[in-house]
Amino acid sequence: MQNAQIEVRVRYVETDRMGVAHHTHYFSWMEAARTELMRQGGLPYKNLEERGYTLPVREAYCRYRKGLKYDENVIIHAEFLEIAEARLKVGYKIYRKKDKELAAEGYTVHPFIDNSGKIVKTPDFFKKLFSAPSP
Amino acid sequence: MQNAQIEVRVRYVETDRMGVAHHTHYFSWMEAARTELMRQGGLPYKNLEERGYTLPVREAYCRYRKGLKYDENVIIHAEFLEIAEARLKVGYKIYRKKDKELAAEGYTVHPFIDNSGKIVKTPDFFKKLFSAPSP
Amino acid sequence: MQNAQIEVRVRYVETDRMGVAHHTHYFSWMEAARTELMRQGGLPYKNLEERGYTLPVREAYCRYRKGLKYDENVIIHAEFLEIAEARLKVGYKIYRKKDKELAAEGYTVHPFIDNSGKIVKTPDFFKKLFSAPSP
Amino acid sequence: MQNAQIEVRVRYVETDRMGVAHHTHYFSWMEAARTELMRQGGLPYKNLEERGYTLPVREAYCRYRKGLKYDENVIIHAEFLEIAEARLKVGYKIYRKKDKELAAEGYTVHPFIDNSGKIVKTPDFFKKLFSAPSP
Repeated sequence: MQNAQIEVRVRYVETDRMGVAHHTHYFSWMEAARTELMRQGGLPYKNLEERGYTLPVREAYCRYRKGLKYDENVIIHAEFLEIAEARLKVGYKIYRKKDKELAAEGYTVHPFIDNSGKIVKTPDFFKKLFSAPSP
Repeated sequence: MQNAQIEVRVRYVETDRMGVAHHTHYFSWMEAARTELMRQGGLPYKNLEERGYTLPVREAYCRYRKGLKYDENVIIHAEFLEIAEARLKVGYKIYRKKDKELAAEGYTVHPFIDNSGKIVKTPDFFKKLFSAPSP
Repeated sequence: MQNAQIEVRVRYVETDRMGVAHHTHYFSWMEAARTELMRQGGLPYKNLEERGYTLPVREAYCRYRKGLKYDENVIIHAEFLEIAEARLKVGYKIYRKKDKELAAEGYTVHPFIDNSGKIVKTPDFFKKLFSAPSP
Repeated sequence: MQNAQIEVRVRYVETDRMGVAHHTHYFSWMEAARTELMRQGGLPYKNLEERGYTLPVREAYCRYRKGLKYDENVIIHAEFLEIAEARLKVGYKIYRKKDKELAAEGYTVHPFIDNSGKIVKTPDFFKKLFSAPSP
């Protein structure tokens, strides 16, 4: 299945008084990597929303291993772990760029929701696009 | 004209590596105080949105005087400074609760936008509600 | 073991373009509830930091059940699930206030870190304070 | 005087229920552009902090002209407007990348603070570095 990665720098606003990036921001970075994952697969998330679907977050998990400092370059890698009838699961690995140390890893789980707010099966066009191996 | 105030505690996530609340969050607190200002005036902002109006932020300004630490109680005072044909201006004062020290002050300016995204005159019902002196 | 709860209102800045509170903010609310849990137990977290300890987040998990709208009152309940030699586990339940619907639940795991950045055993004073049943 | 620019994509977490980037995040983007401005001038802000100085925000202002949507590319341009004895002033212009439309503009004002928390004169090494015209 497909994967993608993005790079961010830790913003000052993202640090806390421990001097490292606050743990909540890792989830925002994962989300940005998920956006990139969908774009690279050929279906930007905003297009999916325009087609009447949303992928709200049902579960979110992160395990933190290393602190990330202000202005450090960070790599976030995202990949589909599961594209099932009833849910998607996306996995993430977050690396400190300079030494490739794994700083955190996590996952999110998403149902497919249609216009009327109901959970629906993962559409076929989605499965076709994203279940193929990464080029 | 009317005024209102709210109290918040500085959240850990709101601190930065200088050990004090990051300056961007003051604008979120001002917004929360603005929400309270409208609720107390009898027109919660969500009701205004339901009536087809929005009040986007056109200008935002803050002058910072004192740092605010994690877990400190903070008072945010909001009041209408101007309810004009073409814009609203709301002023804010942010106090450290324990000693009433002024920690920051600022303002925001808002046009009235209707459903179609056009700037409109401040509606009469709004002027009536909020131009009266605070009880 | 002890528990505590806080109440927040969903801030405008916390909503996203789906119209509900963005999932990352639930973790900030949990953190604020954890702060309250420690304060009520008699050891505000800032005092713990002053004594040379920190409790960074090692794991964070949340399961989302209901969206929470702008300006809704939200109750966040926190309790210690585990106070072990090597880690603390805190559990959270997030309720929509108006109908007591469970909107989300989650947990965080924390090691005890001392001044020098090393993981240490959970100090006895901490165990004594927080392992007792809630009054 | 010197200038620099960065590019960001609007993150989902940065949108609000109006469907555009919330106004507070513009200040975080400005800060990230200011970080880049200092890096390109040869003095990354973290190095300045290591030398015992900080540049807290004394004033922050933004005028908003256009909404910025989820996933849009945004250019933030930063330049020193004033490098005076007692303060720095940095100006910002925020553009929608696709059509170069000006979406917002603003400024921040910063005193120089030393280790002991006192306001000091802008150090000579700083003036030399940043007062020169951009290459």
